[in-house]
Amino acid sequence: MRELLEKIAAEGEVLPGGVLKVDRFLNHQVDPQLMKRIGEEFAVWFRSERPTKVLTLESSGISPALMAAYELGIPLVVARKRRPLTMTDDVYRAQVHSFTKQETNEIIVSRSLLGSGDRVLIIDDFLANGQAALGMVEIVEQAGADMIGIGIVIEKAFQDGGRLLRSRGFRVVSLARIASLDGGAIQFADEVMIR
Amino acid sequence: MRELLEKIAAEGEVLPGGVLKVDRFLNHQVDPQLMKRIGEEFAVWFRSERPTKVLTLESSGISPALMAAYELGIPLVVARKRRPLTMTDDVYRAQVHSFTKQETNEIIVSRSLLGSGDRVLIIDDFLANGQAALGMVEIVEQAGADMIGIGIVIEKAFQDGGRLLRSRGFRVVSLARIASLDGGAIQFADEVMIR
Repeated sequence: MRELLEKIAAEGEVLPGGVLKVDRFLNHQVDPQLMKRIGEEFAVWFRSERPTKVLTLESSGISPALMAAYELGIPLVVARKRRPLTMTDDVYRAQVHSFTKQETNEIIVSRSLLGSGDRVLIIDDFLANGQAALGMVEIVEQAGADMIGIGIVIEKAFQDGGRLLRSRGFRVVSLARIASLDGGAIQFADEVMIR
Repeated sequence: MRELLEKIAAEGEVLPGGVLKVDRFLNHQVDPQLMKRIGEEFAVWFRSERPTKVLTLESSGISPALMAAYELGIPLVVARKRRPLTMTDDVYRAQVHSFTKQETNEIIVSRSLLGSGDRVLIIDDFLANGQAALGMVEIVEQAGADMIGIGIVIEKAFQDGGRLLRSRGFRVVSLARIASLDGGAIQFADEVMIR
């Protein structure tokens, strides 16, 4: 998605350790107009698969996922990292390991929100090691629902997540793919420049 | 906002201890079409104040706040409960006490995202004791920005937050005001039935 690549090139910042900071438009500050167009783009890619639910993980996946769900006209389910007081239901659970934070967290989704009739589109802001996406996939499997695909705003193509998910047969659409952050320079993987 | 009241009446659930569970359309599962109309409603109420930023708190404020920011054509700033690795900037900080969880958490916003030229609209999903909103107000004050108002999806009018914020001179617009949850019945405050 050309507009997104231009935004990343203009406002993204590379921090030591290969961390890409895009918090002026994607997570800490959010550009709602860009999120709307990202939602439209995901809808173009996945509408023909007739998804019934979008699934994301709190909190920075919510903005692009909400706009995708809006465009598709289906509900958004937000997997929780922490069980709120109001969540008294039976839940699906999965473990998500964060390599950057060196910790494992449980993510949970109420059983009442996903079931065997659902066709689930997972949306997330970043794909690096793929652990968050794999955790969400596990929840979709526990629910007996169909996985129709995974939409990612920014994929770090030099990390393992994309390969891992694609090797399991999932359709992964990343609107921006970063080939390298070496030397503090953002290099995009060429193929995504097509759209 | 009549549609919201009808949704709360139809799908809201009262849990012991006066907790209103609306996680089928507002937080755990989110109805994006309803969020869009909530965003439009906030825009009608606050557009004339010429806000430059919407401020909310992760994670359940994000959905209504994103749609309000979209309608107003301005950025959304998401106050963080936890500092992410990418957040290396100087930050504004405020303490937020949760009476329900009996804990105090710090919320933070990068100094680069709010400044003295900003006119800030705070949006949140719930208003009960007002502690989260007061924490955000404190951050707006630290930034030297102008507070133009506070938009709330559901106000528990039988708790102190609304009175506290209004007594400080802030314009608080709540799209649904709950007068009572006594005996497990959801009673709305009458005046909001007008719209």
